[in-house]
Amino acid sequence: MTAKVHLDPGAFACPAPVTSDDTIVMGHGGGGRMTADLLASVFLPAFANEILLDLEDQAKVPISSGTLAMTTDAFVVRPLFFPGGDIGRLAVCGTVNDLVVGGARPLYLTAAFVIEEGLSIAELRRVAASMSAACAEAGIMLVAGDTKVVDRGKGDKLFVTTTGVGVVPAGRALSVAMAKPGDAVLVSGTLGDHGMAVLSLREGLELETTLASDVAPLGGLVEALLATGVKVRAMRDPTRGGLSSTLHEIAERSGVGMRLDEAKIPVKREVQAACDLLGLDPIHVANEGKLVAIVAEPDADRALAAMRAHPLGRDAAIVGRVTSDVRRVVMRTAIGGERVVTMLAGEQLPRIC
Amino acid sequence: MTAKVHLDPGAFACPAPVTSDDTIVMGHGGGGRMTADLLASVFLPAFANEILLDLEDQAKVPISSGTLAMTTDAFVVRPLFFPGGDIGRLAVCGTVNDLVVGGARPLYLTAAFVIEEGLSIAELRRVAASMSAACAEAGIMLVAGDTKVVDRGKGDKLFVTTTGVGVVPAGRALSVAMAKPGDAVLVSGTLGDHGMAVLSLREGLELETTLASDVAPLGGLVEALLATGVKVRAMRDPTRGGLSSTLHEIAERSGVGMRLDEAKIPVKREVQAACDLLGLDPIHVANEGKLVAIVAEPDADRALAAMRAHPLGRDAAIVGRVTSDVRRVVMRTAIGGERVVTMLAGEQLPRIC
Repeated sequence: MTAKVHLDPGAFACPAPVTSDDTIVMGHGGGGRMTADLLASVFLPAFANEILLDLEDQAKVPISSGTLAMTTDAFVVRPLFFPGGDIGRLAVCGTVNDLVVGGARPLYLTAAFVIEEGLSIAELRRVAASMSAACAEAGIMLVAGDTKVVDRGKGDKLFVTTTGVGVVPAGRALSVAMAKPGDAVLVSGTLGDHGMAVLSLREGLELETTLASDVAPLGGLVEALLATGVKVRAMRDPTRGGLSSTLHEIAERSGVGMRLDEAKIPVKREVQAACDLLGLDPIHVANEGKLVAIVAEPDADRALAAMRAHPLGRDAAIVGRVTSDVRRVVMRTAIGGERVVTMLAGEQLPRIC
Repeated sequence: MTAKVHLDPGAFACPAPVTSDDTIVMGHGGGGRMTADLLASVFLPAFANEILLDLEDQAKVPISSGTLAMTTDAFVVRPLFFPGGDIGRLAVCGTVNDLVVGGARPLYLTAAFVIEEGLSIAELRRVAASMSAACAEAGIMLVAGDTKVVDRGKGDKLFVTTTGVGVVPAGRALSVAMAKPGDAVLVSGTLGDHGMAVLSLREGLELETTLASDVAPLGGLVEALLATGVKVRAMRDPTRGGLSSTLHEIAERSGVGMRLDEAKIPVKREVQAACDLLGLDPIHVANEGKLVAIVAEPDADRALAAMRAHPLGRDAAIVGRVTSDVRRVVMRTAIGGERVVTMLAGEQLPRIC
């Protein structure tokens, strides 16, 4: 598409005013002067870098030969802003985390915005600023973008789709198909923080003030873990569907089973309280700044120590083991019994990310 | 995000049934079993390739060192299906074309779907099949995807965001900042076909049966043009905003002007008729399978011949010249006068792509 960014070269230095009482109107998506003004006054100031300012239809970036990692995600979280984050931070971190769990080093990001007519420009600016800060934190550069506007009632304020590319250094071979019986299952911290923060806000629970999303970029934690030389077989970020979905995926892809120890699973007291109130189990609830790592048994304690030495891994724990019980995920409960952990069928927490 | 594609390894061979009377429900976006079933029965059969079937959180693909081109676009066209194409074909071609106009060879594509609850699975299948065919036609491989579902009334059936990467062969230096006074302005065929096909359908014009979108991938045409060795300074695909926006962008970025000759601009009779009926000028109307090329003057006729020799360039024409009249786009009208071509301010044809 042309007109992703088309702009008077002087406009960036002196942003053109946005029109229509600081609210998005259909014209902002028309690809004409109003689109250019919106880009000049909202997006380019937030993300200014040489590649983006080239204003071509495609970003051109240097790359080394090897293995490119590529991932995309649409974000439709409701509401746009929540304790601990917002849709912009989520969109950057979610995509970055999908790269780093494959052992990739994030390099370049694109973002496409579908905006509902009537969104305030102030909210859009807030999202762009948050994305920019998250990009800096994650060490990724936003190099291309697109903006579309849909009629009032045909969207829900803002949807953001981010796509990331990175490179996987030679010698790294991580895959969800590589878990082996006996391996340790590690999580980098408390579970359910993101899901319960968003849900509590949405449902108006009294608890909301004490809950905050964990949304964060995991590249630093992953690099710290891999730098120790421990044998990491697979990593995932347990987002939509929570730890349960993640472990089921690994179990299915690797042809193994999982045995969890409920007493070892770190959960914040206020998250557990909110879960109890709503009848949810934290292992099904979304996280946006947590890592699940499957590590060869002899290296488990070193991996745990490496995680705990990182600010995002302070509450890390070994929560279970890989078993040979193919595709079966079970949990030893806190009171000593054992139950099968099922993968949820449908929607437990709609629009959590 | 986890759960982009999580799937029983056996499910692809024997697709799981989709549920709820073949209509999308919120559960299809939950990241659980229903999401996996939707992927197994709709998306994976359409796009089956080894990389996608790896089912990791990130696609891992080989890449050569050099210059990577990267672009993203959200597609919100209404209606989803129109004469000559649909949102899926548009999403593939639009992103491919943004790569090839920079001289890049398309390699890998990602797609993120935001689906409104209530969309029929049959329509989703049709879109996926169309995208798959367009990927084959364009020579690009879909390697990663994501699916989200939003509540009824919070979307509009389907939005698709595609992101593409490609490599720019060494020695190719194309840029919208490189047009020079005296260069020829070429278009690869008739203007306004896409915009008027969609608009006519939407407005219920009687003409609709004779209008069809031109949506097509332009990689073959571009490679044929570049293979002749002619000096191409810049290329763009004149989508949203039409030829007018494209020439304004090039004029602004290159610090030049443009002089068009209205009599030379190829427009189908039925498109002109529809434009007349709605008071539109074809140079402002979107195209999705046309190329604008700025070519050094001595090479203009060879470039024209190369375009015309390609099936997508049969109606190519030299429609104007680059001038030194900075940022001013003028047109010699068919009746011999001259008028300034303005860049549209806002939205002329909402949700055309």
